[in-house]
Amino acid sequence: MTNRKATHMATTHGYTADKEALQKRLRRIEGQVRGIQSMVEEDRYCIDIVTQVTAVQSALDKVALSLLEDHTRHCVIGGDPDKQEERNEELMGAVKRLLRHG
Amino acid sequence: MTNRKATHMATTHGYTADKEALQKRLRRIEGQVRGIQSMVEEDRYCIDIVTQVTAVQSALDKVALSLLEDHTRHCVIGGDPDKQEERNEELMGAVKRLLRHG
Amino acid sequence: MTNRKATHMATTHGYTADKEALQKRLRRIEGQVRGIQSMVEEDRYCIDIVTQVTAVQSALDKVALSLLEDHTRHCVIGGDPDKQEERNEELMGAVKRLLRHG
Amino acid sequence: MTNRKATHMATTHGYTADKEALQKRLRRIEGQVRGIQSMVEEDRYCIDIVTQVTAVQSALDKVALSLLEDHTRHCVIGGDPDKQEERNEELMGAVKRLLRHG
Repeated sequence: MTNRKATHMATTHGYTADKEALQKRLRRIEGQVRGIQSMVEEDRYCIDIVTQVTAVQSALDKVALSLLEDHTRHCVIGGDPDKQEERNEELMGAVKRLLRHG
Repeated sequence: MTNRKATHMATTHGYTADKEALQKRLRRIEGQVRGIQSMVEEDRYCIDIVTQVTAVQSALDKVALSLLEDHTRHCVIGGDPDKQEERNEELMGAVKRLLRHG
Repeated sequence: MTNRKATHMATTHGYTADKEALQKRLRRIEGQVRGIQSMVEEDRYCIDIVTQVTAVQSALDKVALSLLEDHTRHCVIGGDPDKQEERNEELMGAVKRLLRHG
Repeated sequence: MTNRKATHMATTHGYTADKEALQKRLRRIEGQVRGIQSMVEEDRYCIDIVTQVTAVQSALDKVALSLLEDHTRHCVIGGDPDKQEERNEELMGAVKRLLRHG
């Protein structure tokens, strides 16, 4: 991962409009991770902890899907025609990683 | 998810020995989630944010696998013979949820 | 799933160019599934069978990713501007299902 | 993957009782893969093909979960106490691969 802030400085990212909603979700996920720490602290039943881990992963899947949808709308479809092919490849790389293929 | 603390009060869970290592991992994951919040705040490139979301999910997969391994060792293999079948079912339910089949 | 052949009749799908390569992959996957049947028939070790099931799923992930890449290139980026938004939604629905969220 | 048939010759695997049901599922999955080949042949819409790929993967997930459940019941819980730890590790390796972590 490289810091692409510079090259994208002039761009309004797809998620900018929903930034507050996105941050709210991420803060809730952070809270869920702290909740798991408390479960471990309280020696809760392992299966229940794993269930909570899965809930966090589902929430993260939703964040990723929402970012990818915005990416396709703004950076692929609405992007510079010269960059569309490259951005499609980036999109597919991201989907591949989400499916856990390195 | 039910609070099974009461019924398991006398049990030493499988993860108890590694509790500190587990908490360390969870604190690192919490830090990664905060890192994603900063990336959103700084308007970083959407694909790079999704890449970080995937990194958190891989870390959570490892936490889940480690909890399930301990569960099988202590609560299934080493558990009360009367409870082994029930705990195997719980284990499989947890694997199913990890594969995102609700 | 609806039969969209009629409405898409005039379209050359993204995968048309690679149709032979795609069919070759699918025939290999079919062969792998038959291989698993033989393993069951020969009473092979359960873990080894599961390993083969995973290999088939990785091969199917690759088929899906390749179809989605072509879809984005031909039906989203290169598609009728009036349909791009709808096709992006279809794309994201497909990614969501690949992640096993119904 | 090694051929463990020899070393396990005397073992009745967990899935033996349900062998016919398992084979029936695998034959249905084989039919679904052939159905995808026909969809490609008929130039069906890419998203509909991906939807079918996902359906095959869900069916394979169920086969894998069922094999793992039998494995835990017969080879881990009911297995030779000297082998239980090794088989638990094999089980966790299989779950890890199912989650696509090589």
